[in-house]
Amino acid sequence: MTPSTATPGKPGLAVSPLAVPFPLMPPVAGVEMAVGRAGFYKHDRDDLLLVRLAEGTSCAGVFTRHGVGSAPVDWCQVALKATGGANVRGLLVNAGCANSFTGKAGDAAVERTMASVGEAFGCEPEQALMMSTGVIGVLLDDEKITPALPGMVTSLRADAWADAARAIMTTDTFPKGATATAQIGGVPVRISGVAKGSGMIAPDMATMLSFVATDAALSPAVLKALLTPVILRTMNAVTVDGDRSTNDTCLLFATGHAKGVPLIDDPRDPRLGGFKAALESVLLDLAQQLVRDGEGATKFVKVTIKAAASEASARKIARTVCESPLVKTAIAGEDANWGRLVMAVGRADEPIVREKIAIRFGDMWAARDGAVSPTYDEATMSAYMKNAELDITIDVGAGEASATMWTCDLTHGYISINGDYRS
Amino acid sequence: MTPSTATPGKPGLAVSPLAVPFPLMPPVAGVEMAVGRAGFYKHDRDDLLLVRLAEGTSCAGVFTRHGVGSAPVDWCQVALKATGGANVRGLLVNAGCANSFTGKAGDAAVERTMASVGEAFGCEPEQALMMSTGVIGVLLDDEKITPALPGMVTSLRADAWADAARAIMTTDTFPKGATATAQIGGVPVRISGVAKGSGMIAPDMATMLSFVATDAALSPAVLKALLTPVILRTMNAVTVDGDRSTNDTCLLFATGHAKGVPLIDDPRDPRLGGFKAALESVLLDLAQQLVRDGEGATKFVKVTIKAAASEASARKIARTVCESPLVKTAIAGEDANWGRLVMAVGRADEPIVREKIAIRFGDMWAARDGAVSPTYDEATMSAYMKNAELDITIDVGAGEASATMWTCDLTHGYISINGDYRS
Repeated sequence: MTPSTATPGKPGLAVSPLAVPFPLMPPVAGVEMAVGRAGFYKHDRDDLLLVRLAEGTSCAGVFTRHGVGSAPVDWCQVALKATGGANVRGLLVNAGCANSFTGKAGDAAVERTMASVGEAFGCEPEQALMMSTGVIGVLLDDEKITPALPGMVTSLRADAWADAARAIMTTDTFPKGATATAQIGGVPVRISGVAKGSGMIAPDMATMLSFVATDAALSPAVLKALLTPVILRTMNAVTVDGDRSTNDTCLLFATGHAKGVPLIDDPRDPRLGGFKAALESVLLDLAQQLVRDGEGATKFVKVTIKAAASEASARKIARTVCESPLVKTAIAGEDANWGRLVMAVGRADEPIVREKIAIRFGDMWAARDGAVSPTYDEATMSAYMKNAELDITIDVGAGEASATMWTCDLTHGYISINGDYRS
Repeated sequence: MTPSTATPGKPGLAVSPLAVPFPLMPPVAGVEMAVGRAGFYKHDRDDLLLVRLAEGTSCAGVFTRHGVGSAPVDWCQVALKATGGANVRGLLVNAGCANSFTGKAGDAAVERTMASVGEAFGCEPEQALMMSTGVIGVLLDDEKITPALPGMVTSLRADAWADAARAIMTTDTFPKGATATAQIGGVPVRISGVAKGSGMIAPDMATMLSFVATDAALSPAVLKALLTPVILRTMNAVTVDGDRSTNDTCLLFATGHAKGVPLIDDPRDPRLGGFKAALESVLLDLAQQLVRDGEGATKFVKVTIKAAASEASARKIARTVCESPLVKTAIAGEDANWGRLVMAVGRADEPIVREKIAIRFGDMWAARDGAVSPTYDEATMSAYMKNAELDITIDVGAGEASATMWTCDLTHGYISINGDYRS
């Protein structure tokens, strides 16, 4: 499969050179989807996704810790508290309006929308959830959504993952999906997810929008216990521009519809081992696709901090490096400007031992023991920087902890997408 | 006076559209300067500045809190501790090599340079200070500096402020100077300073390089007490790209050579009132010139945060807004995208009351009470955004403290200067 063209969010955007093909996504038993058009965009595209979940579906979510947040994030948190994440039946996603910073009117628009979904699915409004993405500060016009619902309900089907991934795109240039299988008590289960996001990506809880579904039978408490730690190493370990969204949401559903699968209600159950690994692989895959579609990105960069004082310290240093405009522009320029890496490491305000700092690009040392490496060779290094995927390791000499983050470069493309309103 | 052309650091750079003319800078009694060429740049330009200070000159400095720092910053801190800031006689500044991350060899290069300056001025090496700017990770070649010293010593003169400001430029597109007068005990004194910096500007202690001299007679303790609080509202209140330099240094000298000026050795002396205000005006002027010369800048933006829980909180929110790539690109695109301001305010992780947030551009309300303002008018707002100087005020509704920061926009120019190595 080749990457799709980039019509949905912004017509005319070229597909990211780092795009990956959309995977084959077989149905997940107990999950049906349909896409539709509310008309939040002027051009012809789907901007709505409706998901119906089988009776008894468990759910857990992680949300942005953004101080302003948004009406749909507030709704999800209140609704999940009310139901305890048990028997969640519906999810509605819209692109084109974030419904953030819209006050009580924004809350009311979500309430009316969820009431309509509840009516369509024969459940309480609180059994339905909502995710929104788009412009901040514009009130959601739910009267554009409700007329589209009946048609979407009649077209619900199990194999619509690719359509779903496209319907939620904004400035994304390719749809993002990932899937894996695992076994629970000898029974095969599937885990599939989609995500969207390209700019305003520095998730501090979850990505802009992502949902993952499995046909495993897992209690809400198990889902919550699985999701929280893994988010730290996946969605929270990527950054495009350091600008955290008001609407970041990641939802995990378990339908329990895999035939003969045992119900797991203890997060420490040893039968979860393979499932945990598969879940992490799906979320990491989706997170990395966000970076691959970073606005204007031409390089996919892995940054590993080693020998840090603590894991939290390693993460903060990695984030500072990954969000430094001077580091990101040097990478865009294919320049092994390791001095800028030193600058970024030192401004993270974390423990480092200057005399022990070492920097590697791939397996080549740029710096060792706090100064340029004796084996540093400009020509070899410049050749390495031409790769589309780069691997940078920085040893900060302050302890034994490490962390990895993924980011992209900062190019004219980012400026054009976000600043060239006049062109 | 019109702005000078931008030859020094990078030939071919156009002068910033926000540039201001270099002011008339009369001599400061007790301060002599000379410029020279070490050859740290391939093209023909001065890259050295030597300053001789009259016997008995007091000095105080503030320095980068960067974790890696640099050999010249280390030297200044150790030397000022040794002398207590009393009787400082010399300052040498070089552009083209930061001498940061250069280990013991870097320290030794500074020591040899300072020994040469001490010899030339007939003082101890510790009575001389050094500031360096340029590439990180390259060892300072002091053998390029020492041969130039004798010629510079013979050409020392009192009215060389403009030459001094140009000799220390790197990617700066215009030289930066500011001057003011005040009275101490009825005696007029002068305060003059120069600064350099354009990228890697997010001073967290002082700007990249700046020094200010006065002919007032102030003890080192008085200088320190005056400098520290004022830096917070001036040099530390500007940001170009959030990337803090390894070499940030701001030095303040008092020669005591204004005729008949009384010696002040108590920072609480009421005769300092006018001087304090004049010092702040000089440092603020220099700090704002750094932003006006921000790499690629086309807009000069003042961001005021009001009704914050504390001054520190207001500063952190202001910094988050000023360093947000999405805010900066929106401003570059002359788009009054106040939703991005909301995003940046909310991701600062500081106390805010969403329902009370209000945003003004100039004197026009974009948002009030946590939603779009009823008086918001897209056309009027778009017209305002075409101004080269913008004034943004955000009320976060959490308390009574406020803070102001200055920044510039993020444009293709920044990417070109820092990333277009191939062009």
